[in-house]
Amino acid sequence: MSDVKLWIVGSIGIDDVATPNEQRCDLLGGSVTYAGAAASFFTHVGAVGVVGSDFPETFRERYRRFGMDLAGLQTRSGATFRWSGVYEDDMINRRTLKTELGVFADFSPELPDSFRDAPFVMLGNISPSLQLHVLNQARGRPFVVLDTMDLWIRIARADLDAVIRRADVITLNDAEARMLTGCHNLRDCAKKLLAMGPRFVVIKKGEHGAMLFSEGGIALLPAYPIEKVVDPTGAGDCFAGAFMGFLAQTRAARVDEALIRRAMLHGSVVASFGVEAFSTERLERLTRDEIAARVEELRAMCDLS
Amino acid sequence: MSDVKLWIVGSIGIDDVATPNEQRCDLLGGSVTYAGAAASFFTHVGAVGVVGSDFPETFRERYRRFGMDLAGLQTRSGATFRWSGVYEDDMINRRTLKTELGVFADFSPELPDSFRDAPFVMLGNISPSLQLHVLNQARGRPFVVLDTMDLWIRIARADLDAVIRRADVITLNDAEARMLTGCHNLRDCAKKLLAMGPRFVVIKKGEHGAMLFSEGGIALLPAYPIEKVVDPTGAGDCFAGAFMGFLAQTRAARVDEALIRRAMLHGSVVASFGVEAFSTERLERLTRDEIAARVEELRAMCDLS
Repeated sequence: MSDVKLWIVGSIGIDDVATPNEQRCDLLGGSVTYAGAAASFFTHVGAVGVVGSDFPETFRERYRRFGMDLAGLQTRSGATFRWSGVYEDDMINRRTLKTELGVFADFSPELPDSFRDAPFVMLGNISPSLQLHVLNQARGRPFVVLDTMDLWIRIARADLDAVIRRADVITLNDAEARMLTGCHNLRDCAKKLLAMGPRFVVIKKGEHGAMLFSEGGIALLPAYPIEKVVDPTGAGDCFAGAFMGFLAQTRAARVDEALIRRAMLHGSVVASFGVEAFSTERLERLTRDEIAARVEELRAMCDLS
Repeated sequence: MSDVKLWIVGSIGIDDVATPNEQRCDLLGGSVTYAGAAASFFTHVGAVGVVGSDFPETFRERYRRFGMDLAGLQTRSGATFRWSGVYEDDMINRRTLKTELGVFADFSPELPDSFRDAPFVMLGNISPSLQLHVLNQARGRPFVVLDTMDLWIRIARADLDAVIRRADVITLNDAEARMLTGCHNLRDCAKKLLAMGPRFVVIKKGEHGAMLFSEGGIALLPAYPIEKVVDPTGAGDCFAGAFMGFLAQTRAARVDEALIRRAMLHGSVVASFGVEAFSTERLERLTRDEIAARVEELRAMCDLS
């Protein structure tokens, strides 16, 4: 029996990324990649995704070096999902140049038997119907974080509502929270989202940090001020991955608001490292000591006592 | 001898403000108004400004109810400064419809003798040459906070640099920090600003909070999540006013970084009340107990222990 504590379903891709300073091709990307690498600092992660026959063995090897279990990684004949984008000077706004679905177009995620009892699940950004399909293969009642995006809010609202009902935590950015609820004030957005099912709503604001809403009230987490952002791709996935990894490593009987705050702190810190290089390059040489040191640094920056 | 602990120089105006929900005319406004009202919860404030012969006695009376010393308030024949603006749906971006300088065009601030020994000074948003002119009338070495705006960065850079050298704290928003330094990353902006003179740099990010930079490192303060923003006019002035009022009420031998953090917390909280109504209407019925309660609420929201 596998000891996978957290499985992550989502995209796996090969990215071309241009920033104002640099252009890089054929990078390992996708939500499973970023979230899995980030979570791996805390727990044993299982990857659920699909790649094409062109997927380099070196990328598979990189997953293994992060200690990820690849039993849920399907290889299909055809091309791996490809994305390319270009960032504006602010390193926040970006334009998608190209999206080629390849084998991702017919993706039907299958959960290996060895993952089915895992207590933590991250539903990364794929269509809500696929998220439901794979979640229905889990046994027991795992703790579920759901990530989504504007596309599904527009074109798959009914399925999205169904998967939101099954989530313990929903993470989304401020624009998506507004689009999904029709409210402007983020407190109003959160009230509506909490009424849809999740116990916890995490609104991500990028360089401005994140907000947590729950029955327990509101928590505010500023982002770590990064000296030099090299590539912001995957920051949200890193946040959610490390967040869930942190939860999975604790042996708490119940996930409460105080634990969620600490998980957000760790998610934010790992994401702040992730954007210091392209793809998972910074995470490959990141250590637990570096994470712990920056967690303390960010805590001290936020100290109001 | 007056016991004014903090004097504030800046604009005093009559505003017309339109928000997506409401339109209001002939409101008491200006940086002295907002900053003075906010500071008055903590210390004895002196106002330095100019009004026209049309300035209503009810507005003067409102200043008095905030306990402000009006010895520095000049009345000149002519019209009071008038501003009108309209807010977009996000309640952040705004368009100025009209600016009529009136008596403000020939303003030459004179510091009453009874203010000259005050230990705290706020140089609100007027031209840097006038800020210097009035600061030169102070005796001793007061603790100075400087607020500025994009206009002076563009048209009065040399004078602005001179007044920045005299400031202990400079407060400005992120766009202004970038314009003034030519840097994009806010850490780089702060480094340049600290090298220009001030010991403390406070970068205001509106609904996203504020950042403090000093020799002591970085502090991050999220903004209080407001349930209903009615009128954001003057929020930055309220922040700076309450910030300085808080410092002025302490009897600390030296203003250190921990004290500045607490002053920012109080500045942020008073500003969060200020935007809950037009003009100073919310501040008129605000109590010290309400401020203390929201300070504790915001502290709890930011607790990462």
